[in-house]
Amino acid sequence: MTAARYDVLGIGNAIVDVLARTDDDFLLRQNMRKGAMTLIDEDRATTIYEAMGPAIEISGGSAANTIVGCASLGGRTAFVGKIKDDELGRVFAHDIRAAGVAFDTPPAFDGPSTARCYVLVSPDGERTMNTYLGAAQDLHPRDIDPDAIAASAITYLEGYLWDPKHAKDAFLKAAAAAHEAKRLVALTLSDAFCVDRWRDEFLGLVRDGTVDLLFANEAELHSLYQTADFDTALTALRREARLAVGTRSENGCVVVSREAVLAVPAAPVERVVDTTGAGDLFAAGFLYGLSQGAGHERAASLGALAAAEVIQHLGARPETSLKALAQERGLAK
Amino acid sequence: MTAARYDVLGIGNAIVDVLARTDDDFLLRQNMRKGAMTLIDEDRATTIYEAMGPAIEISGGSAANTIVGCASLGGRTAFVGKIKDDELGRVFAHDIRAAGVAFDTPPAFDGPSTARCYVLVSPDGERTMNTYLGAAQDLHPRDIDPDAIAASAITYLEGYLWDPKHAKDAFLKAAAAAHEAKRLVALTLSDAFCVDRWRDEFLGLVRDGTVDLLFANEAELHSLYQTADFDTALTALRREARLAVGTRSENGCVVVSREAVLAVPAAPVERVVDTTGAGDLFAAGFLYGLSQGAGHERAASLGALAAAEVIQHLGARPETSLKALAQERGLAK
Repeated sequence: MTAARYDVLGIGNAIVDVLARTDDDFLLRQNMRKGAMTLIDEDRATTIYEAMGPAIEISGGSAANTIVGCASLGGRTAFVGKIKDDELGRVFAHDIRAAGVAFDTPPAFDGPSTARCYVLVSPDGERTMNTYLGAAQDLHPRDIDPDAIAASAITYLEGYLWDPKHAKDAFLKAAAAAHEAKRLVALTLSDAFCVDRWRDEFLGLVRDGTVDLLFANEAELHSLYQTADFDTALTALRREARLAVGTRSENGCVVVSREAVLAVPAAPVERVVDTTGAGDLFAAGFLYGLSQGAGHERAASLGALAAAEVIQHLGARPETSLKALAQERGLAK
Repeated sequence: MTAARYDVLGIGNAIVDVLARTDDDFLLRQNMRKGAMTLIDEDRATTIYEAMGPAIEISGGSAANTIVGCASLGGRTAFVGKIKDDELGRVFAHDIRAAGVAFDTPPAFDGPSTARCYVLVSPDGERTMNTYLGAAQDLHPRDIDPDAIAASAITYLEGYLWDPKHAKDAFLKAAAAAHEAKRLVALTLSDAFCVDRWRDEFLGLVRDGTVDLLFANEAELHSLYQTADFDTALTALRREARLAVGTRSENGCVVVSREAVLAVPAAPVERVVDTTGAGDLFAAGFLYGLSQGAGHERAASLGALAAAEVIQHLGARPETSLKALAQERGLAK
């Protein structure tokens, strides 16, 4: 195994977020599940956009946010995801490259437009997401470069990849290439309803060792093990996963390995503005920490720090250097 | 004169802002004048975009921001400006309509793309703007509906309209229609370098009564009267303008009429994040106040309040209801 060229390579849906503040009545009227991610078609996208208030556009996508977070911490990173060659596609490509991330996936020149996620942010900071997958659906196994995967210490995948038709195969090709090169494969479960859709397959990935490291929040773990009890889910997870992190919002996280169950507190937050990207940025800190040889506690603290930064402003990408923040807190050199 | 259908109708360049934080070294390296608005061509736009950091897209445009501010205060408003029928054009149209503004200017179906302003925000909150006018250049006199102008208590124009070729004629057609209907015409000088380009024509508009109400900041007044002394400029302005407001950032503003010179303080601000839109939102409050029959002092206080809101976050559009803010401060019912 040669030295890694990338600390973390992420594969996910390449999405531009369209964010607007809302009240909870709007969610009710639009029949939206508060806090969830719902897949929508182009007609529904048009209906939602026409009904929602003035918005701002910020690049998003779960794994993409994570990778930008890793880069902001100082990591060497790459991202794989499908945009179309249109205005929002160029916005996505600009933003991720400007963050220092290698992004070489060829864009689609025809077919549906670049994916958009209509994010409604409630007064309490909770976000409700409606995703039109568009061009992201066209991520194919041929977009996976096994050499890039082999050159990455960790390959990180989002559970949302299970939704587009060919992305699942791209996911499996990447995981195989990573393991072939004796690298780590990490997965986030993404969303409780995504777990509802793909529960058995996700459990299979954990059980058969396709995934070395699993990220999940409480709702996702409850859905994965079909239990309302967090400790029951955690016990099951500990039996099945090599390494996993259960995130619990303001209650911090629990790192679960065969050796230990380690609770790490959340980082202090002055005011929650928008929770979009909280889980993505937690993963960024944890993955970056692992890639630098940090122990689980420091890696989880880096995750908590990155998550705390992103929920204090609109959008799911860090607004400040996470490396500088981590240095201030003594979590990085 | 029948009752007005709109309190304020604005005419301006329809622009989407592409905002990124920057350091002042970047401005130096890119040879940008800090704090100014510079017109750029498409090649330069590409160069700047490639060099700048991760950005967010928010609808902008000086008069458009003002009109959205008036709407947020509870005013009945309309906007006239030219977009292309492209993705960013649809973003602009969505955002202004979602703010409650009537926007009926037909988009261009060919020619250059929707205007973009690359806004670099320095750590001290100062913004430096680079505008690619694109489709905004195609605002023609035929886009001006004299009936809509006649039905608006105030028609508000931005000095930037003097830059695109046909927009000046649209401006003059609108001003004539407003005066024909015995309505008010207001103008903002927009930017000191814009005044450098069009000084004599702007002075002519004030002197011949085409403009009833003039907004200008200190730098613009210095440029207009080619003096480094604010009081000298103010004295000249008082001789020539029916009504004018000189804005002085944290030092508040001075309302100048034949009868009096009235100083009104700025509203308190916790932290300046981004000064983009400060002048636009001051004008929003003042115009809305005037349209509701407020005196100059309360109108200026409404302007100060709206400006204070917009400089405490990224972007030039209010993030909260200005009407609710004004009610809290006892400035509106």
